[in-house]
Amino acid sequence: MKLASVRNGRRDGRLVVVSRDLTRCTDASYLVPTLQAALDDWRRIAPHLAALAESLEHGAVPSERFHEHDALSPLPRAYQWADASSFHNHVELVNKARGREVPESYRTEPMIYQGGSDAFLAPRESIPLADERWGLDFEGEVAVIVDDVPLGAEAATAREAIRLVVLVNDVSLRYLAAGELAKGFGFYQAKPSSAFSPVAVTPDELGEAWNGGKVHLPLSVDLNGKPFGRANAGVGMLFDFGEIIAHAAKTRPICAGSIFGSGTVSNKGDDGPGKPVSDGGVGYSCILEQRTVEKILSGSSVTPFMTAGDMVRIEMKDERGHSIFGAIEQTVAGLES
Amino acid sequence: MKLASVRNGRRDGRLVVVSRDLTRCTDASYLVPTLQAALDDWRRIAPHLAALAESLEHGAVPSERFHEHDALSPLPRAYQWADASSFHNHVELVNKARGREVPESYRTEPMIYQGGSDAFLAPRESIPLADERWGLDFEGEVAVIVDDVPLGAEAATAREAIRLVVLVNDVSLRYLAAGELAKGFGFYQAKPSSAFSPVAVTPDELGEAWNGGKVHLPLSVDLNGKPFGRANAGVGMLFDFGEIIAHAAKTRPICAGSIFGSGTVSNKGDDGPGKPVSDGGVGYSCILEQRTVEKILSGSSVTPFMTAGDMVRIEMKDERGHSIFGAIEQTVAGLES
Repeated sequence: MKLASVRNGRRDGRLVVVSRDLTRCTDASYLVPTLQAALDDWRRIAPHLAALAESLEHGAVPSERFHEHDALSPLPRAYQWADASSFHNHVELVNKARGREVPESYRTEPMIYQGGSDAFLAPRESIPLADERWGLDFEGEVAVIVDDVPLGAEAATAREAIRLVVLVNDVSLRYLAAGELAKGFGFYQAKPSSAFSPVAVTPDELGEAWNGGKVHLPLSVDLNGKPFGRANAGVGMLFDFGEIIAHAAKTRPICAGSIFGSGTVSNKGDDGPGKPVSDGGVGYSCILEQRTVEKILSGSSVTPFMTAGDMVRIEMKDERGHSIFGAIEQTVAGLES
Repeated sequence: MKLASVRNGRRDGRLVVVSRDLTRCTDASYLVPTLQAALDDWRRIAPHLAALAESLEHGAVPSERFHEHDALSPLPRAYQWADASSFHNHVELVNKARGREVPESYRTEPMIYQGGSDAFLAPRESIPLADERWGLDFEGEVAVIVDDVPLGAEAATAREAIRLVVLVNDVSLRYLAAGELAKGFGFYQAKPSSAFSPVAVTPDELGEAWNGGKVHLPLSVDLNGKPFGRANAGVGMLFDFGEIIAHAAKTRPICAGSIFGSGTVSNKGDDGPGKPVSDGGVGYSCILEQRTVEKILSGSSVTPFMTAGDMVRIEMKDERGHSIFGAIEQTVAGLES
């Protein structure tokens, strides 16, 4: 089934079930008001939501047109947003860009940071940018939303606790990151509010593309209407979502509704760190990678970070070309200061 | 007024108003079910809660005995727990212990990390510890819970948005920290679930001790029934809570119910990094500081980290010796593995 939280003037929106083709939706708030409330009581609520989804497909319940513009992030705020960096090509390129050593442990245990989760952007909401010198970048990712995971859970147990899959734009301020990482406490200002896809889907909606705790489909990232990235989210991911969640649960229990990200989707090419889409490669899911490759190939970075008016679109299509999650589409808005 | 969330079998507990002397409480859930719901609509709800608190003081409403053991953390889970490290004596000692340089910027801008907020421990709940080699430590801190803070807010605006004050035990796994900090992404496994004081209080309950966005009172930390720390939370704090929150709000808005911590309360002595309580000093609010000072003074650390059965108690008393927030009191529980 597919679920969304639509605007209703309240902080957590109103839960709706969305049709498989994303054209129609039906109110689910008479069952449970919000997606977090559904996740808090998933075992009891999910069968009712699934039955409603089937009725919606068969036209057996009242429905209305679903507009992606009306959707908030599926969890407009969450109790946890923890983002891994699981694609080795991204880890290698980003550290090269920052002039940092690649951490020794990155192939033996997941890298993960605790992100801010109190105020996500809606999938079509503009990205506020107070200062263009901060180096605004997008990061196209896949993420999962989990049920309760007990302290010390193994990867197999954690994998079974995955309830929903979403896409993410992990908005990043590149020129604030270096100073923050030097302090040793990880990102804070460098990771402002992220945005998630209009729709969250249960893993079974992905069919065979959901396999081994990974999503084996290309992630479409367009910048200003042009293809920028088509990297496959199932290729080059060192740790699957089960392993990422188990790493997180090693020293503490995980609460239902926690969101775990894959990190920027990135595919290494046969002959190096991949190629831009315009050169026949699968491109990149963030600008920083493309800039790093430009520097490697030609000595200087050409593609600028985002400034006011720039637009990023992140989407994933199934094998028949149908959008699975709806699209994140965000324009950068300068702020008066 | 003083507020608590008491156990009722639900994830977020039931909101009660607690008497100033912490002996009695009265149900507030007919006004608003949970503390987060009250914070979501504070302007409208707070006057009703304040009126109820006055009625409770005058015995004008039904009340029951308040047991600190029945309290969950005031927010049993939160949309944000961001912890600063504002006490320069702590920053200096911890970096010395880790063999790291003190970050250059630590006196010019707050150090802050994003902590896990999805599953806090209750104030009297035992601390689960799967492996004693992880080096379990407590950190006694003060924290504030805020209303919405707009993106780009100044410190003065942020200070006005502080709604509640609490105490924290920021549980830390010292031997996991070094490896995590080396990766550059900050703490994750090294910071398992924190616990908060049984009661959250509005700043006016602190009287003159609340001044300039700091709490000017000693924090009592006892280890296994003996005084361990009596450091003053208003002394040696480089950045007040307004400045910490403004730093956080520089690149993103802050949602009501977000919690910001002071970092481990720590006072430098006239003649160096302070002295243990047993040597006539004000002592420390975490074991790591005492171990570092022991190493400086005698060449080796003596005080062990916590193991199964050890107990820490964190409390703050007003000038007449009355507990303000109730006590965090936690025993370490080994896990069968």
